[in-house]
Amino acid sequence: MRRIRIGMGQTDPTVGDLVGNTAEIIRCIEEARSLGVDLLTFPELAITGYPPEVLLLKPQFIKQTQLSLAEIVEHSSDMVVVVGFVDGGDNGDIYDAAAIVCQRKLAGVYHKISLPCYGVFDERRYFRAGSGCPIFSIGGVGVAVAIGGDIHGTEPAIAQTCAEAQVLVNVTAFPYHVENGRSIERMLVAMARRNSVAIAYNNLVGGQDELIFDGSSLIISRGGEIVARGRQFERDLIIADLEVVEKHLSQAVVHTVSAEFPALAKPALSAKPREQLDNIGEIYRALVLGTRDYVRKNGFEKVVIGLSGGVDSSLVATIAVDALGSGNVVGVSMPSRYTSSSSKSDSETVAKNLGIEFKVIPIEKAFGSYLEMLSELFRGPVPGVTEENIQARIRGNLLFALSNKFGWLVLACSNKSEASTGYTTLYGDMAGGFIPLKDVPKTMVFELAQHRNHEARREVIPLSVLGRAPSAELRANQKDTDTLPPYELLDPILKAYVEDDLSIAEIIGRGFEAEVVVRVARLVDRNEYKRRQAAPGIKITTRNFGQGRRLPVTNRFEEQVNTF
Amino acid sequence: MRRIRIGMGQTDPTVGDLVGNTAEIIRCIEEARSLGVDLLTFPELAITGYPPEVLLLKPQFIKQTQLSLAEIVEHSSDMVVVVGFVDGGDNGDIYDAAAIVCQRKLAGVYHKISLPCYGVFDERRYFRAGSGCPIFSIGGVGVAVAIGGDIHGTEPAIAQTCAEAQVLVNVTAFPYHVENGRSIERMLVAMARRNSVAIAYNNLVGGQDELIFDGSSLIISRGGEIVARGRQFERDLIIADLEVVEKHLSQAVVHTVSAEFPALAKPALSAKPREQLDNIGEIYRALVLGTRDYVRKNGFEKVVIGLSGGVDSSLVATIAVDALGSGNVVGVSMPSRYTSSSSKSDSETVAKNLGIEFKVIPIEKAFGSYLEMLSELFRGPVPGVTEENIQARIRGNLLFALSNKFGWLVLACSNKSEASTGYTTLYGDMAGGFIPLKDVPKTMVFELAQHRNHEARREVIPLSVLGRAPSAELRANQKDTDTLPPYELLDPILKAYVEDDLSIAEIIGRGFEAEVVVRVARLVDRNEYKRRQAAPGIKITTRNFGQGRRLPVTNRFEEQVNTF
Repeated sequence: MRRIRIGMGQTDPTVGDLVGNTAEIIRCIEEARSLGVDLLTFPELAITGYPPEVLLLKPQFIKQTQLSLAEIVEHSSDMVVVVGFVDGGDNGDIYDAAAIVCQRKLAGVYHKISLPCYGVFDERRYFRAGSGCPIFSIGGVGVAVAIGGDIHGTEPAIAQTCAEAQVLVNVTAFPYHVENGRSIERMLVAMARRNSVAIAYNNLVGGQDELIFDGSSLIISRGGEIVARGRQFERDLIIADLEVVEKHLSQAVVHTVSAEFPALAKPALSAKPREQLDNIGEIYRALVLGTRDYVRKNGFEKVVIGLSGGVDSSLVATIAVDALGSGNVVGVSMPSRYTSSSSKSDSETVAKNLGIEFKVIPIEKAFGSYLEMLSELFRGPVPGVTEENIQARIRGNLLFALSNKFGWLVLACSNKSEASTGYTTLYGDMAGGFIPLKDVPKTMVFELAQHRNHEARREVIPLSVLGRAPSAELRANQKDTDTLPPYELLDPILKAYVEDDLSIAEIIGRGFEAEVVVRVARLVDRNEYKRRQAAPGIKITTRNFGQGRRLPVTNRFEEQVNTF
Repeated sequence: MRRIRIGMGQTDPTVGDLVGNTAEIIRCIEEARSLGVDLLTFPELAITGYPPEVLLLKPQFIKQTQLSLAEIVEHSSDMVVVVGFVDGGDNGDIYDAAAIVCQRKLAGVYHKISLPCYGVFDERRYFRAGSGCPIFSIGGVGVAVAIGGDIHGTEPAIAQTCAEAQVLVNVTAFPYHVENGRSIERMLVAMARRNSVAIAYNNLVGGQDELIFDGSSLIISRGGEIVARGRQFERDLIIADLEVVEKHLSQAVVHTVSAEFPALAKPALSAKPREQLDNIGEIYRALVLGTRDYVRKNGFEKVVIGLSGGVDSSLVATIAVDALGSGNVVGVSMPSRYTSSSSKSDSETVAKNLGIEFKVIPIEKAFGSYLEMLSELFRGPVPGVTEENIQARIRGNLLFALSNKFGWLVLACSNKSEASTGYTTLYGDMAGGFIPLKDVPKTMVFELAQHRNHEARREVIPLSVLGRAPSAELRANQKDTDTLPPYELLDPILKAYVEDDLSIAEIIGRGFEAEVVVRVARLVDRNEYKRRQAAPGIKITTRNFGQGRRLPVTNRFEEQVNTF
């Protein structure tokens, strides 16, 4: 029986920032060394960030990645370091890879075998699949390395490796969606027990465009006990001591590395795994992290938000303040002739509660001038959706004028229920550089607002906002329910249709009214053209719009529904 | 020696329109029967349209596709019909497939083996790969079927099949890009000669969102002679008689079908292959087809275009008229205080030349009201890009107001050079439902305009438009070259960087000024956020922005350039 000290750098890289990401890795190596770590790991593609997408087609990007790896090797000193990078072969093939570094030498490279190509994953577009999964015998300890879902695959080489290794390092970049953390834990614990192997599961953290990585790295003993758990939605250096028992290593899978783990004279660490957030708490933190990382990684200081006095913009402002600080958030109220006095006062209250800069720009002047400019052409048709959209687009223009003038990023406040049904104005309330609630259904917007108030033990978002019936306020006495079913009815239908691919007939079979289901499904299908022009936003469900759900815009599919 | 009559239905399906696509196939079967065709083919995924993307994840879509196939089988009568569809297994696996139908029975199904997953292709996200490539012995004639690039692959089964078959049917959905037609022809002719096999290459035609299929189907004799060539960019039914010589068929690859080709009493056809368009003619036709199919397949009658008097909007209007007829195109001039009198008169001349409805809406009133509304906040900073963008966005709002009110689709007029460098206003000149010139560099815009004038033997697009230095006219005396290098210099740099993935150093090595190349490359990298919100537009180069070139928005990669 021996003891080794394992460290995991839960880093937050920026895609493409080879210099910055490498510097963060080296800082982490130095900190781990001072803490007596023997084996230090970093996540999948920690050097490049995940996913690099078409950067991977640039030979120069691959070359510079190798230079970054060489720099890390140089700084590894006497630790064993495992770090994710992109390995480039001479023939132009590239691999999603992990480097195993010992005593300032590259001791081995593992190539990811199982390349997902569905949902948000596109790995087979870029990477060649690896084969073979050796165990690195380091000072007599059998260490196996696997990337991402490789360990859950059916590859016989991996199964053998998992069974024979003493420590299994699983570096990964696993995008967050609600409730996935718990299932990963269960799977890894079962795997550790089944194979009597200690597992170091090292996940990325951070926001990258639409994806959130939640960290939540794990160190699991060979008995299946969770010895340490990394912070959720934050950078971390996780350290734990693991006991290692002898195992027979078949020669077939072993790659012997001429390195020793130093004798462990240091006292044993006793770690206590952190508590996990509940579901709604996780989602809120994901939105904060995603907003912060998008804004900061794209070089912005401040954001501007159109505050309508409704729950969506109130929540976005709250998230922005939690992400960036109240000094970096500007709220703008842009009332029209249809804005109620309670909406006006609520938007001001939200700004006051959050302590953010608040501006008011009434849009009547511009609205009037558009109506005048169009009066001759529009003679005849009665005012309707056109006039509603003009107001929303004036607001979009004003926010972008502020953005242009002062360099603020515009956060748009539309939500997933609106994007699904097209109940949103292109270039109007959709206008923005980023859409924090893009994947958040309206009913969850309310839950998140209540959660945030509850956490603060005060009304950050006023109860009057939460209590008012949702309205776009683009005509007199407008309510969302004039156009859409109530959100409590709409959201589960949307989930079934968009996220779970149920047929219309199946959804009706779950007890929803046929007419409503058909209408909702048609709205989803017909509004892809709007979604195609939406800014990026944070993915929190199993399926967001965008990369993971590419519906053709030109699409005439209509389900045959025989039930009515 | 026998003779069989081959027909190829070069159809233009709409994705998802199972009912409409099937009706087109059946009409084609009936016409082919009246012309004595023995073997009739339809392109890859002719029943569903290509690419169906996430529709493929809907079990109901797969089910309804099988019903459509059954209907085609029912109507096949005594012809042999090969038709592309999606085959669904019981376990949820689906295949990009071709059905071989004989005497109203499904005689066999071929599953595509080689599934591309790069550029605009995403087939491995959805389909399982087939294996095996039998020859169907139909009335003693060995007919092999392959889909798309299968015949160019290295699969040994396919190589054997190609060598032994007498007729090779290659059904495909091959997206057009400039100059690809000629290389396909050369490849197929060489393959026919090498294997002494007659080839029926049946490609789709039509526009589907960003993709254009150019048709250009081919019937090639076993001697490598092009016997018939389908129309370019148009529906067609291509028919030719082929002589078939005996070949030895190994039992291993043969699947015998109990059907006969009827004895050929009918007189031999003598076809003469059509002439092909030149490059610029092809591109122009691609733009016309893409515009027509996007507008019509999405259920629009009319389009509206902002006519600035510049070459981009003049060309878009010309394309729209060629696609939809002059009665379905509305031009709107929206002059500002910076619009020159020549631009005003040129936009009117273009409208007159094209015979389209023409409206003028000066934007001064709205512009003035925005400046007034923002005057307090903007006190201090001098007018600049913000004020320029406000004008462009007023125009975007007006076009969308017309679209909302009258149901016209807005065609945006930005081009690839602008999209590459971000020299375009989000929600301004980028505002639109479709962007015909999205993948057309500015220098090619001029070529296309000249080509169209030349074809018409008159100045459809006035020489004064072609002669004026490009300007956005958003401030006094503005020229594009104030901000960008001249387009003759810019466009080749963009092609090298965006389409050919050359490094900055390599582009400099081709003789371009280092400072210019670095500046252009940085502009491309930093403006992905704008392109992400662009409407769809027609792909005509080897790499367009969008699906085929996914650059992360959050991206800090900077090439190390050592040459200066």
